[in-house]
Amino acid sequence: MTRPDVPNPAVRRLTLYLRQLEQLLEEGADRVSSSQLAQSLHITAAQVRKDLGYFGAFGRPGVGYRTAPLIDALRRILGTDKPRNVIVVGAGDLGRALLRYKGFKRKGFNFVAAFDIAPGKVHRSAGGVEVHHLRELPRIARRHGVELAVLAVPPEAAQECTDLLCGAGVRGILNFAPTTLTTPEDVAVGPVDLAGHLEQLSYLLGPSR
Amino acid sequence: MTRPDVPNPAVRRLTLYLRQLEQLLEEGADRVSSSQLAQSLHITAAQVRKDLGYFGAFGRPGVGYRTAPLIDALRRILGTDKPRNVIVVGAGDLGRALLRYKGFKRKGFNFVAAFDIAPGKVHRSAGGVEVHHLRELPRIARRHGVELAVLAVPPEAAQECTDLLCGAGVRGILNFAPTTLTTPEDVAVGPVDLAGHLEQLSYLLGPSR
Repeated sequence: MTRPDVPNPAVRRLTLYLRQLEQLLEEGADRVSSSQLAQSLHITAAQVRKDLGYFGAFGRPGVGYRTAPLIDALRRILGTDKPRNVIVVGAGDLGRALLRYKGFKRKGFNFVAAFDIAPGKVHRSAGGVEVHHLRELPRIARRHGVELAVLAVPPEAAQECTDLLCGAGVRGILNFAPTTLTTPEDVAVGPVDLAGHLEQLSYLLGPSR
Repeated sequence: MTRPDVPNPAVRRLTLYLRQLEQLLEEGADRVSSSQLAQSLHITAAQVRKDLGYFGAFGRPGVGYRTAPLIDALRRILGTDKPRNVIVVGAGDLGRALLRYKGFKRKGFNFVAAFDIAPGKVHRSAGGVEVHHLRELPRIARRHGVELAVLAVPPEAAQECTDLLCGAGVRGILNFAPTTLTTPEDVAVGPVDLAGHLEQLSYLLGPSR
């Protein structure tokens, strides 16, 4: 699933601009130029202007962008201007670590429940979020109007959980399982390739010794 | 730090090509075309040929690539053709989850040690890897010739641990802490923006309700 006209890499950069703008605002910068945004991402100012240009006219030539309004605009574009309810499937090490990870909440994501099938994990809580049995997922997801899920189950369970999520009205799945998921066309999957990140660093080191 | 001439997004795509090639080989495909590689990544075949072209001539027009040799070549390019020793700093939920995550080993990364300062975490093991006190880091990192580290500590401890890593000869840091790190020019940082991944999915859902 993609929204037309805007390439995925541009959307990815929007999240990076937002992160940088939030940091700049904290440091007291109420204006920012496209060159400033470009510099730390090692891209051109023209690229920044083009990416933002997909969504409207935010800055003024020679003046730049007003930081706070641009942050608001980006949050609206990314759909995080209001809190989004999220569920986590899989309450193993990774699932529990993600439930406790503070970076999500700060970005407007609100974990409302987690799910597992292991008796030792169900009915406990992690990061202040209760772990329910997987069979409760459809009911709880619908009650909270959940559209986003984080999938942190073993690869062999990933597709089955995905089918359950799709049936429960979830439309976006952040997938930490190292496997490819099949979903209906209106459900987006964001694969998180942890090993791929390490491979990119390995490349920068040059040949292994 | 970047290696000249090859843009970062191209390197990122190499890791995706590799992942797909490994899957194709498992399914018995001994040849693959640039269009096949392009299709599931929603890019053009010309882009695939251009990315691979930075590193040599691998395929033949009209014939495509031989899967296994291309996998070998990509591993050599990414420096994962021989196992790379990796350490994990921070043995909290996330660190322990990463130590147990099977996807790294499969890609040629070999966790040799983890580090923390909390008495309850030190001298335990996670995923078969022993957790040492942080002060042991320089000695152990040098003994194993470690060049890659995964940083999974709270943001307020991230820079101090980074300095320690840089002093111990580490040249690539995969950073899970939601903060920006300062490193010498010859040390690369790969930031893993977990919340950013969720923002990209949120974008695809459209405005929040």
